[in-house]
Amino acid sequence: MKVDGKPFRSIWDEDGAVRIIDQRWLPHDFRIARIETLDDFATAIRNMWVRGAPLIGATAAYGVARQMARDPSDAALSEACAVLNATRPTAINLAWALDRCRAAVAPLPAGDRADAALTLARRIADDDVECNRLIGVHGLNLIRRIAARKPRGEPVRLLTHCNAGWIATVDWGTATSPMYQAADAGIPLHVWVDETRPRSQGALTAWELGAHGIPHTFVTDNAGGHLMQKGLVDMVITGTDRTTARGDVCNKIGTYLKALAAGDNDVPFYVALPSSTIDWTMTDGLRDIPIEDRDPREVTHVQGALDDGTLGRVRVTPEGTPAGNPAFDVTPARLVTGLITERGLCDASAEGLAGLFPARGAA
Amino acid sequence: MKVDGKPFRSIWDEDGAVRIIDQRWLPHDFRIARIETLDDFATAIRNMWVRGAPLIGATAAYGVARQMARDPSDAALSEACAVLNATRPTAINLAWALDRCRAAVAPLPAGDRADAALTLARRIADDDVECNRLIGVHGLNLIRRIAARKPRGEPVRLLTHCNAGWIATVDWGTATSPMYQAADAGIPLHVWVDETRPRSQGALTAWELGAHGIPHTFVTDNAGGHLMQKGLVDMVITGTDRTTARGDVCNKIGTYLKALAAGDNDVPFYVALPSSTIDWTMTDGLRDIPIEDRDPREVTHVQGALDDGTLGRVRVTPEGTPAGNPAFDVTPARLVTGLITERGLCDASAEGLAGLFPARGAA
Repeated sequence: MKVDGKPFRSIWDEDGAVRIIDQRWLPHDFRIARIETLDDFATAIRNMWVRGAPLIGATAAYGVARQMARDPSDAALSEACAVLNATRPTAINLAWALDRCRAAVAPLPAGDRADAALTLARRIADDDVECNRLIGVHGLNLIRRIAARKPRGEPVRLLTHCNAGWIATVDWGTATSPMYQAADAGIPLHVWVDETRPRSQGALTAWELGAHGIPHTFVTDNAGGHLMQKGLVDMVITGTDRTTARGDVCNKIGTYLKALAAGDNDVPFYVALPSSTIDWTMTDGLRDIPIEDRDPREVTHVQGALDDGTLGRVRVTPEGTPAGNPAFDVTPARLVTGLITERGLCDASAEGLAGLFPARGAA
Repeated sequence: MKVDGKPFRSIWDEDGAVRIIDQRWLPHDFRIARIETLDDFATAIRNMWVRGAPLIGATAAYGVARQMARDPSDAALSEACAVLNATRPTAINLAWALDRCRAAVAPLPAGDRADAALTLARRIADDDVECNRLIGVHGLNLIRRIAARKPRGEPVRLLTHCNAGWIATVDWGTATSPMYQAADAGIPLHVWVDETRPRSQGALTAWELGAHGIPHTFVTDNAGGHLMQKGLVDMVITGTDRTTARGDVCNKIGTYLKALAAGDNDVPFYVALPSSTIDWTMTDGLRDIPIEDRDPREVTHVQGALDDGTLGRVRVTPEGTPAGNPAFDVTPARLVTGLITERGLCDASAEGLAGLFPARGAA
């Protein structure tokens, strides 16, 4: 999407080099990094210069491509896959992308490998962009319907939690894709952006929306219920890390609270997702999805820009305060108005998902 | 309550001087300040060295008492009331305490005024302590009932939002009073403490509980719903800034989301309050209670201790991000399991409140 009027992706290749938006500095500073060596790629993934499952997969594929351009040997291919796969062991898209790369490249003669790997990396990136664009097209229909009920010029007011934005993908994002589509279609929008403690990913969403020119207001995670009670939210759209075959949604901690508030105030609550994040083996999300407990210091401390512009952190609690940091929660399907996928909208249910994805069959 | 084993109030007089816990430094530093001149008292209230309606009222009364000890003239009495009343114009307990002081002192000969004003200030402080103690005694019964259903030694797990603690009153606090009573009665407890962005008053609650020796865990405001889904919360207790005659509860922003989660998970949701905070003139809280919009910088910035131990702040958002800061929300009575008052427990309803306070008559 756009940054100061210029379109960007979160990763791209240009003149034989790969460039990424170095997300360590966001939302405070917009920097582009050139990544070249295998070590660069591994560092970029491990240390979260790039983040978000789809973007991690694309970055790994580009890493293999650059390695093949330097050294198309079997040994170099194995090394690239091994090193990159070890960077973030739990990211499903990482292993998936590397398996695709190996399968496509290994059978080829050495002289063809560099081109094939680059073509595949570009395709993985393009496929992600297209998948997210389609999510946006389908989500746009929902926004159009709300806009049609409003006096001309009055904005559709959306609320989102966390950053399911374009910088967590190659472009468009998931939850944000309908917003960008709507803005590009000239529909007036206003987005309430949840802070999303502990890691304040809402600040990334605020940066994205601001850079693209979409009106928004940053609020604490506590505020959304009140905003809905006051009739200030027309629809909630979030992303998801994993969706069960029956439509339970595992997303950033606090999503469930917003879904409850949406239900209590008759506000539609939609979840945007590429079908690759549906876990067809799982039926009861609340019972079965393991929830990661992260470092308590993410809760006791807050990072940001100091008054002098450098980055720093403050400790909010007394020294030694015990803290808990469950990173995700599960929103039961009964609280989800609908799912927005690249194939269209469906109910958050086994029947709804089976209707869109008949080959997968719901559990 | 106790700080490192020694009992404290948030304000007290000793050897003819008034001392307060200087709350500007909490939760990072525990400092006691001696306040003496009228200017000291006005500064302490205006600049939030003391905070919380009951404590502000008691501080104002002590301010009048110290003024009368220096100069018991009519002019000095008027000056004290005017100066103190102007410090926090919206704090209802401030005007109430000053009206009581003036009514008690003005009719007396000058020679009797200092003693009478000091006696009254002590009584206002003691009355607050006793009111809060009674809230704790009634709340303790609820905790005992939960404890009785658990295997011996297993803690009762409470969750609270914001700081309705002893340092917002003269002692005991409101939502915390049942916790201190239970701890003093030897009932094992564990308290989930909501951070309470934007001002992170949960850090004050964590400090209080830690200083008194009550086990607790600090969590983001997003976490409570997940904790309840997982069966890790036995009861929620919050305070309230204003309660309507029909039991709607206006409290710190985010309280409503916890009440929704409690309702969705059959967790009892109780609100502790002195009856002085009931607004008998108001029936529909959601419609009628005005919600203060505070400085957006409270949302975009977070204060705390820097790595070198000094206090500082970081900006979480990109520079210029618009932010909203509604400070309170209204939890409808239907989501409140019960109210804990100094007279006992009641339903959050006109009938429930009228049963405990028959002279007031519900609307």
